[in-house]
Order: sequence, then structure tokens, then C-alpha cells
Amino acid sequence: MAYFDVASTTPLHPVARQALLAALDEGWADPARLYRSGRQARMLLDAARETVAEVLGTRPDEVSFTASGTQAVQLGMLGALRGHRRRGAHLVHSAVEHSSVLHVAERHEAEGGEATSVPVDRLGRVSPDRYAAALRPDTALAVLQSANHEVGTVQPVAEVAERLGTVPLLVDAAQSAGRTDLPAGWSLLTASAHKWGGPAGVGVLAVRKGVRYSSPLPADEREGGRVPGYVNVPAIVAAAASLRAVRSEAQRDNTRLHALVERIRERVPRLVPEVEVVGDPVHRLPHLVTFSCLYVDGEVLLGELDRAGFAVNSGSSCTSSTLEPSHVLAAMGVLTEGNVRVSLPLGAAEEDVERFLRVLPEVVAGVRAPLGLDLAVPGGVAGAAGAGAGEGTDGPLVVDALGKRCPLPVIELAKRIGEVPPGGTVAVLSDDEAARLDVPAWCGMRGQEYLGEAPATGFGADHGTAYLVRRVHED
Amino acid sequence: MAYFDVASTTPLHPVARQALLAALDEGWADPARLYRSGRQARMLLDAARETVAEVLGTRPDEVSFTASGTQAVQLGMLGALRGHRRRGAHLVHSAVEHSSVLHVAERHEAEGGEATSVPVDRLGRVSPDRYAAALRPDTALAVLQSANHEVGTVQPVAEVAERLGTVPLLVDAAQSAGRTDLPAGWSLLTASAHKWGGPAGVGVLAVRKGVRYSSPLPADEREGGRVPGYVNVPAIVAAAASLRAVRSEAQRDNTRLHALVERIRERVPRLVPEVEVVGDPVHRLPHLVTFSCLYVDGEVLLGELDRAGFAVNSGSSCTSSTLEPSHVLAAMGVLTEGNVRVSLPLGAAEEDVERFLRVLPEVVAGVRAPLGLDLAVPGGVAGAAGAGAGEGTDGPLVVDALGKRCPLPVIELAKRIGEVPPGGTVAVLSDDEAARLDVPAWCGMRGQEYLGEAPATGFGADHGTAYLVRRVHED
Repeated sequence: MAYFDVASTTPLHPVARQALLAALDEGWADPARLYRSGRQARMLLDAARETVAEVLGTRPDEVSFTASGTQAVQLGMLGALRGHRRRGAHLVHSAVEHSSVLHVAERHEAEGGEATSVPVDRLGRVSPDRYAAALRPDTALAVLQSANHEVGTVQPVAEVAERLGTVPLLVDAAQSAGRTDLPAGWSLLTASAHKWGGPAGVGVLAVRKGVRYSSPLPADEREGGRVPGYVNVPAIVAAAASLRAVRSEAQRDNTRLHALVERIRERVPRLVPEVEVVGDPVHRLPHLVTFSCLYVDGEVLLGELDRAGFAVNSGSSCTSSTLEPSHVLAAMGVLTEGNVRVSLPLGAAEEDVERFLRVLPEVVAGVRAPLGLDLAVPGGVAGAAGAGAGEGTDGPLVVDALGKRCPLPVIELAKRIGEVPPGGTVAVLSDDEAARLDVPAWCGMRGQEYLGEAPATGFGADHGTAYLVRRVHED
Repeated sequence: MAYFDVASTTPLHPVARQALLAALDEGWADPARLYRSGRQARMLLDAARETVAEVLGTRPDEVSFTASGTQAVQLGMLGALRGHRRRGAHLVHSAVEHSSVLHVAERHEAEGGEATSVPVDRLGRVSPDRYAAALRPDTALAVLQSANHEVGTVQPVAEVAERLGTVPLLVDAAQSAGRTDLPAGWSLLTASAHKWGGPAGVGVLAVRKGVRYSSPLPADEREGGRVPGYVNVPAIVAAAASLRAVRSEAQRDNTRLHALVERIRERVPRLVPEVEVVGDPVHRLPHLVTFSCLYVDGEVLLGELDRAGFAVNSGSSCTSSTLEPSHVLAAMGVLTEGNVRVSLPLGAAEEDVERFLRVLPEVVAGVRAPLGLDLAVPGGVAGAAGAGAGEGTDGPLVVDALGKRCPLPVIELAKRIGEVPPGGTVAVLSDDEAARLDVPAWCGMRGQEYLGEAPATGFGADHGTAYLVRRVHED
């Protein structure tokens, strides 16, 4: 099995495992206690804090350990908002932050605060100018990720930070900590140990000296009053040891990983028909690449890749419990169906990547085969010179995909657009949220014209949305 | 080293260690993922949830895993308060709950809610009638521990639950889970794995079906929407495996531990002068006993016991970072100075307990020696027929202990009370919070009469409190 999903979680690094076992023996006691084993646990905790601070470029007394990256984000955001509430209750974040950030923003708004989501371009990158334009006199906190977790795009954090004036910036560095250098300009920094090869159960919240912070939870005396609850010393020791090890390995391996990802970015579009590689090709994480395949059900694709020996993730709605496609892909305006994210571990074998590139075309073709689409001439399936509904001044050809989930609405569209002549219109009726993103994305990829959406009730349905597409060319 | 502080934390149980190592290999992946290693992690997580539910007497779908016992308490209390806010914002808890409960109550009050702290008797036990009397029509939540963490007193949870009507009851079972049967009648239950021999980083929050709960934090789809953040599968697997093992061992060992604790309870007062064993002698945890030694600095005592090879804890103010004595001992109205809590691990060796009983009298005597108190005739130190200030109708003898920390004010009092004749009064001036508890407790132990307190400014000082004691007898 080639594990290509380190952006979800990374197997425990050997150094972390070794440190964990040692710390379970030497650092199991309560570090708040005065007896020998307690003092020993305290010393290990202090040493781990110094290591993490050094690698992340901060001071030990600025570092608190949390139970997860999500907890670090929640405490960091809520604590900074609370600490700056005299300034106001306005929050700024990018549209492609991790869901933990967006959940805090939603809760903040539900409780009377305000939040502005700054859009990103088609590469998933925020514009420093647009970010700065979202600032208001009552902005209490700005949040920006170091790099995107789904498409790998590196954000212009330092440039944004320069435009923030006195507004504190929380940088979610979950995808970068240990892997790459961290950007300058943050007031609060969050990270998660299991993303870099440390154990689950350890997050990092660093708060620069002088940044106002007021605990959103009832506080105790642990972790500088920022993180209530018993401190997990053995896991923290393992997290720190592996952070140092990973940082050093990444400095050696990142160039190689960057080239392997480049190979995937270049070759996938040549090997697989109707595929879109997404994310910034230049400003990107070295080890992460994402692409979407037209007419493919993400869950089926993941299952087939799993059977072929590859563990990857997907932002397609059909693979999520919410039935909503990835908000990152949606904000970028790119195709969400048949989405695959490949994130390579340090030391990933070139031969595994080559095997992935060999297997992928067959797997995608196999998934598409039952659809009967001729992708050598995709889009032009049946009756290219169609003469049915939708021709001339008649109403559009209505393709009823109600009740059908991603990728079926787009597949129906592709199969039937040939029934109308160039200039004719198709109305795809759908109640699947992914269609809102995937129909326009399909038009962009296929060179057809997306006209917009309207209530499906105007087309004889009792619910849903009609997505209107004009057939531009024979294709 | 005899480790007698399992009420703080318990070394990792061998079964937990074994399960942790196995789960680091087999359950390291993200349980939300669809590929093989993700599905495997999910299966391990499901199995662990079933085990914990079975041992705690609840249903798997009622169990959520948190990152600590404190997080379980915080989410449980805040989530239940939020879920029942239509009913009102009144919270009831006992005065001797864990600090995590009291911190939530303080925060709840600071944010406009109300809280009633139900007092306990001198044994640390809440009265079901007094508890019920605190209920109001707007009471949204009641909280009661299964047993006290500092003195071992078991609370009458089932009797309290019967009196609650429709008010939900959160039971903090941190000291009982795995160790003893859990009481009936709870709506929410919290526990902490590292207290029973599981790893740090795992708490349990069980919420009965039908109990209204509204997440106090921005929620995600993990753990039934109750606990945001990445799920720590390996640690949870280890926690579950050790819970089952510990429960079975405790059923075999509790009777023996109960007898060992009985031995400490009976013999300490005969071996050590001026000692008070606290907590309920009957309704108590099998493995925990607490006593306080007059005229002894808790930190010094712990240090000496550590050197003698015993790890114990203390609720004395001099051992805490806050300089405030244990709120539990304070609520019970017992002596807080020279406090020692012994909590025995499963399988604790009888010979270690015997050695503790041999060593303790010497250690306490050694700590007291420099004070020059004759404890063979305690209290009657110097000039039994004193003729100084405080005699007859003169003002009281003023003992200035301002600026002196526990146990010095009581030591000064003991040294100098002999200077006044029976019927005479001593005013101890102190600015140490512990004196408020320890002077009356000393009077109770020594058969002297505590008259009350007054501002020390009435006795020529510019700050502090005067604690007034009447010498009753020669003693």
C-alpha cells in the first residue's frame, strides 16, 4: 500500500515512536506534582516546549500545547477575538481556510459577531489587496492559512501581514509546520502534530508576547491558562522529537518531492482525458497535488485506487458525510467531481509515484466505461446534429437529473448536449449541490457556454435548480 | 519508590501499553477516510466505544471521546446548560467538585448565569435534602461527583438523582470509573482514562439519549458533533482495553485495598500526634485516604516523604501554585495544613503501606522538630500559668503572624496560647488565606474555643485579619 494522504494524517515517525515509548516510562507522572516522577515529567515537558519553540521560530513561553490542531484553532481564534473585543467583533478569513476556522466563523456570526470571507482566485490563492480591503476599524482578528490543505496553494501570508496594521493575524500552519519554513508576521500560530508525524492528541497554539488573549473556556493553571485539562506529556515529548527530525528530513527531501509532484501535475492531464489539475503550480507545497476527473464518482475512484494499493483523499461531495463538495474547490470555482488529492510522505518512493501514474488512467477509464461516453471525442456522443427540443427558438432541451448525485448530472449533460445543435440550450435540472459547481466547471473545461441558473419550477419540476448551458460548438 | 498518588494519575497499565503499541500500527490512520487503513482505524474506534460503553453501563452511541476529563466536564456542563437554556440558567453543584466543575460554574456566573454551591458536612458528603433544596424552577443542570478526589468520600448520587425530577444530572465519575460500580441516575457522565491506567489524552463524555445537548464549541462531524477535532484512535483503543482490565482487577483487589486504607485510617492517629484523618470513614473509595498534620508545612512534608520513597499529594496551600488551600478541605471545615493524600494503585503492596506507616511518624517529627513544640503535651508549651497580656479583662494577647504562610500562623498560636490563662484570649493576626480554615480547625482539634474573626486594623495592624481564640483549659 502506498500511503499518499499525509495531509490527512501521517504515520507515526520512528523518532516519535521511540520518544513516546521512552516518555511513557519516564514522563508518565503529573508534571504539576512535586515528587521525583512529577518533576521529571515537568522537565521533559519544558524540554519539549523549547524544541517546538525553536523549530517554529518562537519563544517557549509563547507556546501552549493543545489536544489537536482544531482545538488550537478554536482556542486561538476565540481567545484572540475575546481578547480584542473592545476593538470590535469583526473577523476576516480566507474562503479556503480549514473547516475548523470556518466553523468558528459561523459560530461567531451566530452569536452576534461579523465575519468576512475573502475570496480566492482560481488557483486558490488570496490576494493581499483584496484581503486588506476586507479590513474594518472594528476588525478584531484576521486568519490565514500558511498553505491550503486540499490543493497545496501557498498563501501570501507575509504580504497580507504587512497590510494588517495592528490587527492580529492567526496563521494556521497545519500543512506547513515541520515541512517548510513558516511565514513571518503572525501574532498567533496553530499546528497539529499528527500532520507532521507526531502522535495524535497534540496541537500547538503559539501566541506572541503582547498579543491580547482571553481564554474562551474556563481556564485552569495549565499551559499558561490557555488550554484547560491534564497535559499529555508523553505525546508532547514525541511530537517535539519528531518535529525536529521531520524538519531536518524535509530540508533534504523537499526538492525531490517537489519534482515528483511536478511529474504528477504534468503527466496526469496527458494520461487521463478530461482532467483538471487544480491549485497554484508555482506557489505550492512541495508534496501535495490535487486534480479532478470529469464524469467520475469520487467515492468509486477512491475505492478503485484503494484496491490498486493507493491511499488518497478526495474533496468530492460523494465522499463526504455532508453530501456537500469541498468548500475549497467551490471557492476556487473548479470542478469538484472525481477529485483526488495526493499528498506524499517524506521519502516517498519514486517507483510508487510511477506506479500511480501507470494505474490511474486504467482506473479512471474503468470507472468511466459503464457510462458509454466516447472520451476520445468527449461531449459529442449521440446525434451530433440533433433535431429535438432545444433547437432554434424552441425552449431548451430539459435534462432531468433530479434525485441524481454527483457526477450523474454532468454525465447526463455530456451525454445529451449533442442532441441540440450549436446555439441550442440545455437545462440540467438538479437538486445536488455539487451541480452548482460542476456544471459551470464542465462548461469551462469543454468550451461550452454556461448561461446561469434558474428555479427548476420554470421547467416543469416541483423543486431543484435548472443549470442552463448553450452548446457553442460541435466538439 | 512507592507511588501512592493514583488519584492524580496512574502509570500506564500493561494492557494499555500493549493496546497502544498495537493500535499505533493498526489504527494510526484517519478513521474518517475510506481506504483500508482508514476503515481499520474506524473499526478499532467503534470496538473501543463498545467496550467503554459496556463497562460504564451505557450505549455506544451515547459515548463520545474527549481529550481529557476536564474537557469532558467542560463540554458536558456547557453543552447541557446550552441545551436546557429555555428552562433557565441556574446551575447546582456541590462545594467539593473538581476544580474543572467550579471553573465552569465561575465562568457561567461571570457570563450572567447563576450557580448554587451546595455545602457538605465535615466528612465531605453532600446531603440529598440540602441538594434538593437548592433546586429552582429555572435549574438547568445539576452536577455531582461520584466520589471526592481529595478525601475519597462517596456521594449519595442515586439519592440526589431521585430528588431531581426532570433536571439533568451530570456525574463526574473521574475517581470511580474502572474502580467501583457507577451510581444510577445520571443524564451525563464524565471520566478520564489516565485516572484508571489508560493513556493521557482521553476523556469520556456520555450523554443519555434524549438529554438535550447543544455544543458549546463550534462543532464538526466527529464524535457525534460533541467533541471537535481529530480523534486519537490509538489512545482511545488503549483507554478502552485498560478500562476493561482495570475493572476486572478492581473487583478482585478492592476489598484488600479497602482494608489497607482502613489500616492507615486507624493507625496514623495513633502513630502521629496532632493529626486529623478526614473524609467519610464508611462511604468512601476503597483506595484513598487523606489526613492533615498540625504545625506542618505540606510542601516540606511531601519533599521528605519523596526522599523516603513515597509519592503522595497534598491539598495544603503551601503546595499549590495559587497559595490557596484546597477548596475541598475548606468546604469540609477541616485542617488544611500538613495535608497528605494517599491513593493506592491496584495491587499496592502491603509491605509498602507498612513501610509508609513506619516512616511517617519519623518524617512528621523531623519536620516539626525545629519548631520547639512539645507535642507530648501539645498546646501547653511555655508558661502554662501565663500572666502576660490577655489575662483577665485586659485586651487579648496579639500574635502577629502577618506575612507568614501556612503553617506558621497556627504554630505561633500553639506556641503562645500558654501565655494567657484559661479564659484569656489570643488574637492571631494573619494575611494568609489558610489561617481562616486552620485556626478554627486547630481550635476544634485542641479543644480551644474559636471566637471568630475581625479586621486586624482593630489590633494595630494596617491589613489582614485577626482570628480570636479563647483558651479554654490548661490542656
